Amino acid sequence: MRATFMYGAGDVRVENVPDPRLSEPTDAIVRTVLSCICGSDLHPYHNLPPSAQGRPMGHEFLGVVEETGPEVSGFAAGDLVVVPFAFQDNTCEFCREGVQTSCRHGGFFPADDSGGGQAEAVRVPQATGTLVKLPVDADSALLPSLLTLADVYGTGHHAAVRAGVSSRTSVTVIGDGAVGLLAVMAARRLGAERIILMGRHKDRTDLGREFGATDVVAERGEEGIALVRDLTGGDGTHAVLECVGLLPAYEQALGVVRAGGVISRVGVPQYDEAPIGFPSLFGRNLTLTGGPAPARNYIDELMPGILDGSVEPGRVFDLTVDLDHVPDGYRAMDLREALKVLVRP
Amino acid sequence: MRATFMYGAGDVRVENVPDPRLSEPTDAIVRTVLSCICGSDLHPYHNLPPSAQGRPMGHEFLGVVEETGPEVSGFAAGDLVVVPFAFQDNTCEFCREGVQTSCRHGGFFPADDSGGGQAEAVRVPQATGTLVKLPVDADSALLPSLLTLADVYGTGHHAAVRAGVSSRTSVTVIGDGAVGLLAVMAARRLGAERIILMGRHKDRTDLGREFGATDVVAERGEEGIALVRDLTGGDGTHAVLECVGLLPAYEQALGVVRAGGVISRVGVPQYDEAPIGFPSLFGRNLTLTGGPAPARNYIDELMPGILDGSVEPGRVFDLTVDLDHVPDGYRAMDLREALKVLVRP
Repeated sequence: MRATFMYGAGDVRVENVPDPRLSEPTDAIVRTVLSCICGSDLHPYHNLPPSAQGRPMGHEFLGVVEETGPEVSGFAAGDLVVVPFAFQDNTCEFCREGVQTSCRHGGFFPADDSGGGQAEAVRVPQATGTLVKLPVDADSALLPSLLTLADVYGTGHHAAVRAGVSSRTSVTVIGDGAVGLLAVMAARRLGAERIILMGRHKDRTDLGREFGATDVVAERGEEGIALVRDLTGGDGTHAVLECVGLLPAYEQALGVVRAGGVISRVGVPQYDEAPIGFPSLFGRNLTLTGGPAPARNYIDELMPGILDGSVEPGRVFDLTVDLDHVPDGYRAMDLREALKVLVRP
Repeated sequence: MRATFMYGAGDVRVENVPDPRLSEPTDAIVRTVLSCICGSDLHPYHNLPPSAQGRPMGHEFLGVVEETGPEVSGFAAGDLVVVPFAFQDNTCEFCREGVQTSCRHGGFFPADDSGGGQAEAVRVPQATGTLVKLPVDADSALLPSLLTLADVYGTGHHAAVRAGVSSRTSVTVIGDGAVGLLAVMAARRLGAERIILMGRHKDRTDLGREFGATDVVAERGEEGIALVRDLTGGDGTHAVLECVGLLPAYEQALGVVRAGGVISRVGVPQYDEAPIGFPSLFGRNLTLTGGPAPARNYIDELMPGILDGSVEPGRVFDLTVDLDHVPDGYRAMDLREALKVLVRP
């Protein structure tokens, strides 16, 4: 089959490799129908040291079950399924507590031995707990939106859930990438009436307004903080959904969050040490939360709104490539010519 | 009147100063019946640069209302009241959201112009929103326990509330000072059935066991972390109440918290930068919360258990001094000869 590998920063190749095979009795093989490129794929695209051993790429995909191991139940060949970016048994204590990303038998796509989603097929470990059936046909126009359940919509939702967003909370979303825009959608869906989107790209923030943003602040740093404070009577917002992952975004979050409020991070932090002392977090009783989204945990809640058309998270995809043109997709996202790239193998 | 001032590290003096007077129409003058020395008073006792201008000391006190300004309602001379360590109007948006420590008209004792609680009398700003009547006589044996509502019991409770402690959560409390021991009491009161107390002083951890600790770990650092993990099947606890405020205590909290869990800090951080990236907080979906306790917010909830005798938080006091011997009280706490010192002016 054809599959995508990264050999170093900027070096994405699509190669012929053997088809994946069942390895554990709990595995399934899923033939990819739709995949995509994640903003987090750009981190290795910028930083991965060159290597002779390519790294399989892609962790968001949906497809058709091709084969299941003897211990997989509830799924059969031909089922159309979406696959969360973390696999899990969905039965252990951590899964029951809603942190499937810390499952005792879990892990993350792509793994060297499972392959990535930017490929014609993938081995899915812990298939019973990981796969979720899609009640549509494989040519449904809803597929791009359903694909966002694998990661990006669930991630935006995770930010909002962890921040306690409701009709009583004002919200700032930092970042106008696909996660930020879907954090806006998730906050709106959870009832937030005031949602300030901080982002510099007008085409993206325009989509953010359609998703529910009530205000857009294009400025960053101190200037952006001052504008958000102006919009909120000087106080900032109860919830800040930090969807970037860089230290300046965290500092911006500290600047726009209201006393007693929550900073919820879903952008993977590209830093470790940061201010959390009295003047930053402690003195104002701020809460810092977030992490990798337990996407599986949210699919049952989020799918109905996609199926009934009340939300259309798949609108974040603005470019579609086939598998052989995945390297062009990375380039387009890196150059910000594309917001998020859909891959149709 | 006699009042306590600190002129530099280790330099505590009790001096004659003019009695406090009403300054704002919202003020009250409270004559101190009981006060105490806080663990956080030891920070300036260790670090305060020498100064010709003494700093008034003490922020935990109860007493009798002596005089009220024309805009104070609900209180009259002769009322026995407890005074939270932060004053507040208790009506602004922040107060209504339960962060009275960020009140629009609030502040903290001691202030240069209000005086501290380790004195014969104190000017209390925002008296209507700050004072809470005590339904006992001024010679009640319950007074030491009622005094803990001013700060230390409310602070332990704040740690537990912010961590979401309930019957479904396992808890580690870091620190066997008065706040740590009352965090144990608060966690038990909120239903926690497994409470691991990390502390090195057997007399204190023995009291912690009486307050509800089910396990005690005297070791610190990596050794202590390993022991807590052993006690919890390798996973750590859902909630960690960090009642110390030093960086090693935060690092210890990271080591003993369970994936998806909460670190709740009430020890005033003596550091600013600390790890919060993927390997520390983010990857395991940890939440970091806490701050100065909005003690006023909790008094109505916590007082009944003191009045009916179901809890006795005043047991943290193990030494009593009069006002002239407050410097001896500081010394005793600093040398760990006393857990917490009661001051009877």
